[in-house]
Amino acid sequence: MSSFSRPDGRECDALRDIKFEADFAANATGSVLVSFGNTKVICGAMLEKRVPGWMRAQNVSGGWLTAEYSMLPYSTLDRKTRDASRGKQDGRGIEIQRLIGRSLRAVIDLQKLPGHTLWVDCDVLQADGGTRTASITGAYLAARLAVQKLIDEGKLEENPFSDSVAAVSVGVYEGEPVLDLPYVEDRDASVDFNVVMTGKGEFVELQGTGEEATFSEDELAKLIALAKKGIKEVSTMQANFLTQRLLGDLKL
Amino acid sequence: MSSFSRPDGRECDALRDIKFEADFAANATGSVLVSFGNTKVICGAMLEKRVPGWMRAQNVSGGWLTAEYSMLPYSTLDRKTRDASRGKQDGRGIEIQRLIGRSLRAVIDLQKLPGHTLWVDCDVLQADGGTRTASITGAYLAARLAVQKLIDEGKLEENPFSDSVAAVSVGVYEGEPVLDLPYVEDRDASVDFNVVMTGKGEFVELQGTGEEATFSEDELAKLIALAKKGIKEVSTMQANFLTQRLLGDLKL
Amino acid sequence: MSSFSRPDGRECDALRDIKFEADFAANATGSVLVSFGNTKVICGAMLEKRVPGWMRAQNVSGGWLTAEYSMLPYSTLDRKTRDASRGKQDGRGIEIQRLIGRSLRAVIDLQKLPGHTLWVDCDVLQADGGTRTASITGAYLAARLAVQKLIDEGKLEENPFSDSVAAVSVGVYEGEPVLDLPYVEDRDASVDFNVVMTGKGEFVELQGTGEEATFSEDELAKLIALAKKGIKEVSTMQANFLTQRLLGDLKL
Amino acid sequence: MSSFSRPDGRECDALRDIKFEADFAANATGSVLVSFGNTKVICGAMLEKRVPGWMRAQNVSGGWLTAEYSMLPYSTLDRKTRDASRGKQDGRGIEIQRLIGRSLRAVIDLQKLPGHTLWVDCDVLQADGGTRTASITGAYLAARLAVQKLIDEGKLEENPFSDSVAAVSVGVYEGEPVLDLPYVEDRDASVDFNVVMTGKGEFVELQGTGEEATFSEDELAKLIALAKKGIKEVSTMQANFLTQRLLGDLKL
Amino acid sequence: MSSFSRPDGRECDALRDIKFEADFAANATGSVLVSFGNTKVICGAMLEKRVPGWMRAQNVSGGWLTAEYSMLPYSTLDRKTRDASRGKQDGRGIEIQRLIGRSLRAVIDLQKLPGHTLWVDCDVLQADGGTRTASITGAYLAARLAVQKLIDEGKLEENPFSDSVAAVSVGVYEGEPVLDLPYVEDRDASVDFNVVMTGKGEFVELQGTGEEATFSEDELAKLIALAKKGIKEVSTMQANFLTQRLLGDLKL
Amino acid sequence: MSSFSRPDGRECDALRDIKFEADFAANATGSVLVSFGNTKVICGAMLEKRVPGWMRAQNVSGGWLTAEYSMLPYSTLDRKTRDASRGKQDGRGIEIQRLIGRSLRAVIDLQKLPGHTLWVDCDVLQADGGTRTASITGAYLAARLAVQKLIDEGKLEENPFSDSVAAVSVGVYEGEPVLDLPYVEDRDASVDFNVVMTGKGEFVELQGTGEEATFSEDELAKLIALAKKGIKEVSTMQANFLTQRLLGDLKL
Repeated sequence: MSSFSRPDGRECDALRDIKFEADFAANATGSVLVSFGNTKVICGAMLEKRVPGWMRAQNVSGGWLTAEYSMLPYSTLDRKTRDASRGKQDGRGIEIQRLIGRSLRAVIDLQKLPGHTLWVDCDVLQADGGTRTASITGAYLAARLAVQKLIDEGKLEENPFSDSVAAVSVGVYEGEPVLDLPYVEDRDASVDFNVVMTGKGEFVELQGTGEEATFSEDELAKLIALAKKGIKEVSTMQANFLTQRLLGDLKL
Repeated sequence: MSSFSRPDGRECDALRDIKFEADFAANATGSVLVSFGNTKVICGAMLEKRVPGWMRAQNVSGGWLTAEYSMLPYSTLDRKTRDASRGKQDGRGIEIQRLIGRSLRAVIDLQKLPGHTLWVDCDVLQADGGTRTASITGAYLAARLAVQKLIDEGKLEENPFSDSVAAVSVGVYEGEPVLDLPYVEDRDASVDFNVVMTGKGEFVELQGTGEEATFSEDELAKLIALAKKGIKEVSTMQANFLTQRLLGDLKL
Repeated sequence: MSSFSRPDGRECDALRDIKFEADFAANATGSVLVSFGNTKVICGAMLEKRVPGWMRAQNVSGGWLTAEYSMLPYSTLDRKTRDASRGKQDGRGIEIQRLIGRSLRAVIDLQKLPGHTLWVDCDVLQADGGTRTASITGAYLAARLAVQKLIDEGKLEENPFSDSVAAVSVGVYEGEPVLDLPYVEDRDASVDFNVVMTGKGEFVELQGTGEEATFSEDELAKLIALAKKGIKEVSTMQANFLTQRLLGDLKL
Repeated sequence: MSSFSRPDGRECDALRDIKFEADFAANATGSVLVSFGNTKVICGAMLEKRVPGWMRAQNVSGGWLTAEYSMLPYSTLDRKTRDASRGKQDGRGIEIQRLIGRSLRAVIDLQKLPGHTLWVDCDVLQADGGTRTASITGAYLAARLAVQKLIDEGKLEENPFSDSVAAVSVGVYEGEPVLDLPYVEDRDASVDFNVVMTGKGEFVELQGTGEEATFSEDELAKLIALAKKGIKEVSTMQANFLTQRLLGDLKL
Repeated sequence: MSSFSRPDGRECDALRDIKFEADFAANATGSVLVSFGNTKVICGAMLEKRVPGWMRAQNVSGGWLTAEYSMLPYSTLDRKTRDASRGKQDGRGIEIQRLIGRSLRAVIDLQKLPGHTLWVDCDVLQADGGTRTASITGAYLAARLAVQKLIDEGKLEENPFSDSVAAVSVGVYEGEPVLDLPYVEDRDASVDFNVVMTGKGEFVELQGTGEEATFSEDELAKLIALAKKGIKEVSTMQANFLTQRLLGDLKL
Repeated sequence: MSSFSRPDGRECDALRDIKFEADFAANATGSVLVSFGNTKVICGAMLEKRVPGWMRAQNVSGGWLTAEYSMLPYSTLDRKTRDASRGKQDGRGIEIQRLIGRSLRAVIDLQKLPGHTLWVDCDVLQADGGTRTASITGAYLAARLAVQKLIDEGKLEENPFSDSVAAVSVGVYEGEPVLDLPYVEDRDASVDFNVVMTGKGEFVELQGTGEEATFSEDELAKLIALAKKGIKEVSTMQANFLTQRLLGDLKL
């Protein structure tokens, strides 16, 4: 149609190559290495027999799910200073881990984790755009694998998740709405959207920003449509991965 | 129509009483006390002759605009511990001030602030829901008043703002999409949206979350429509305030 | 007598215009905006059902009163960096909040606050000299209003305050002892005194410094006399304010 | 006269045994171990070729003098947690080191330290009341010895001190004004005063507090008289120590 | 001989299965995933055009090499709290990263990195004993690969490394000196040694501790002999890996 | 033999002048000022009725011994910034205090300190090489004196120490293995060893580093022999000091 082409030759509505590698960190209860093209995030989930201080103080029943996100120093082409060296987390990382936590809490029944915290850690091994959406997508898988293991070991009674959750980024690059932006597109995009949806097609979170610019209602509609299409595909991949993995486990 | 009614008796698409009080903090270059009902935020803007370290390091031209957000300890019914006492800002505050900064940077030409940082501080005096959207709305006014004063004093050549910016919250309360939620509604809302738009009707940022729940595309559409209506009204109030205020100044 | 005149034309022993505005921060249990001329401090008081760790550890009976002091970033003509951004409070602020706390504890019977901490927060909205003495003066009023509300609500049995407390600054400016110094005088003063006294005329605290210079016994005597006169007037204003305010409340 | 007697049998206006031991920390440029009875403070002074950031930023000429105060963990009968373990200095220590710094700056001409900072460190080896007044008294001596060594080595042109400075504590113990309180008196004193004066008899700083109680003008007058007497004696001891020490050095 | 057997059936002087996987973190200049049995550490090396502050301050010529070590939260069976969440690195991690840095600096000529810092990051993905010795072994490989890439890209003139460096742990487990202890042995070992040596057989560092117990000179001799044997084997594996890898690169 | 001579004229295997001064900090339960030539360290020991959080959490029986190490700012010729000012301890200090703690825990039966922590603080008053080995040597003495006092006061039932512990540094200076290096030798040494042994001649810890260089097995053997000789002498001095001191106490 037009002369527009993406740097990596993909169609505007095509995802990058997405892969999930289970048990990447064998000491975690559940773990996955998630790849969206060259973006790779290690996701690990572990259960702690303890709820946050504010729940104890306010006598809130049930359990909790907390996410933490960090970029490994060598995940970017210019080395990223460690948070621990600076003595505090950077604002962007705090913003992202809050988003990951909210996203997973949208599809979990915390009453089914009484007295426990499910920790989900996302560490970016390689950053090439979309680390937060890859993190959400992988974090759900790591958490789901952990839950299964805890059920198998008799430590959890039932699966607290009522749905799956996945995320993609969409944006306007050189005037075109595109799906799943790598860094080279992200850097120059005029609009940047992160959309989180469940496997059943409900919205969980939607964060769109003009990246210090603005966008119209028309662009908004196109981007949401693109995101829906992408998440639907990612959700299917998640389901296939879990089916294969969990059935595979049953056979052992 | 239905038996639904909001706790404060407002129509679903009605804003709370909105007020702007200029020069609330007389030592700031520009300042406003913004009220959305019982939510009150002090917004102050000041210019610093210096850009952030990363701009100097990367030799980026132009200037910068930074926002900081904090809640005064007595702004909530249970006293809020000061960030300085805990030794670090809380995650929610960091998330909010990053949003305020991005929102204002969407309507400013930073090349027109060469070598300077425009600081915009938002301190919540009274919190009753919607402090972040009130902050954005007031922060723009404080920044705009500061800019005018700097122009009048010959310290800035021209107005770097190309548009105004305002924000409202919308949400689904007891199944109904409602505009501008006070705390009692916000606490029980199943969906929580913050929308930032310019005076010309462009979107700047859109943050919608199921608040650990989910929402449908239909709800999304209704909430965006409601937000557009609300922001249009707020933008008009901002324009009226600035016209009166700036023309008023000219007469002196 | 001499050709000496103060920058704002006041007599040497005259206070600036002093004002108290109640309920300035409506979510606080008690609050006051105190003004000494252009110096304005927001004072808020709130009760917490909990005593400091050291009291629990040492099994000390009764309650506690703690003060915190901070300057809002736009309270000074050059923006003041937030303590939270620097990760710690500045030394001057710590010194001042310790003084405010001691001053209020001198007139309160902590046995009448069993198991509770009365928090008194002072946030400087506009700084023009004498912020610490304005803070003490306003902090007492905020605390006293909070106490009354707690009594009215049945949360406190009786008023734990046995006296009022107020403070003024005095100093030697261009060789003359003067009362209640604004910033322009304070900056050039050769001696700087802060005096805290009770409504009954007892001393609570006296902090005099040659500000990296020295002063004679004769100057000391003159300054103390001046401070006594000033505090007497301030104490009367406090009493009038409370009478009007508390009686006014009774009538409602 | 009365049956009143001090725990250690001293007259009300008598100082404890005061000793100065030079060169206690041989790597410091100047150092003194000062003892007021069982209170012992190590004072060390060193010159750094650099002024604080704020002086460079504001282009202030001359040099600076900074004091730091800390209590060694074993200086008290119950071990005191290190500031470094808690990650920040305690408020009392900050208050004290600010007082020490101001006191020494009152008698030094900072123009005679161009481009340099004179650091004066006070570390309490044994605490038995009056550590801040012992620190000021010893800090001056350590700084004066350092200055002499720097002059002898040709690193300073002339002595920047125009006078000596010393301090004592006074207080009301069991109804009697007493001089130089050890811990057992200090703990029960109803009024606590720290007075700093120069060798020539000028006041530098006066910090009197009812210690969460109040005191009358009559008590104030008696305490100031007592402090003057005490400081005069301490100043003479300082002068004798320096004469002996510095002349002794000349003979070598 | 005796009935002694190791939990994993190895001979006392046998290493676990050791593997090196190159380019594990593709954005690093050089990277390796090193495995000693179930212990896995990600090592990444990157060059920064900048030397530490103390080198600039003291005008030291040449460059620097710095190591950082951290355990990922899911690397242990009980989740390890992130350093960044606690606001500071733990003491053990600091001790280890200082050891890694010294070990690599023993075999590098820093004059051949003028004005640059070579960062070597070690992040433990799976911990099963010996993470610090695995880190040193892998860190050298990552650094060497980075160096080669920098030479190939013309960013470095020559290889600053004069030798390779590797490390193993040895200890006394159930009375027997054993090589390369996994966690189950390490936990119960009465002596714990970490030995660092070069490819040419020189010692770099030797850290032996009775782990809150003691050991004899005879045990010391046996442990050192065992360590030498182990490191010799590891050094050969390093050399083979590098030969294959670097020659492989040349062919491309 | 050769023309080699040490800067201070000592034989290669000779210790500096070693002195122990008891009760240096009279408020500590046990204290010693230890001197190895011009290196002087204040060691203080105190008992706290409380064990660390991790022991309570894991329900570990017995007590604990913790060491802290710090350099006073004036202990070095260039003033050392306080850890508290920088907001955290430096890495070297953390490494050293961990070594001191492990060394003392090797000779103590923690079951004999049920529910208590024995704190041992080492503050360097003068640094001239070997501060960590002097600290270990003095820390044992301070702890042993504290233990005796606690036994005498009936607060401890029996001596939990089963042996004494001492440490020396050895190194290769100008090609010669030398014992107990002062700063001038330490600075230029090619190998630096710290050896910790008990009075009965068992090894506790051995930390040898090529200081960013390497060393041979032959050098290793010579250095260990030298260290053994040195520690034997230091252990004898410790025993003499304690005999004299503790018997002396009995006589009083």
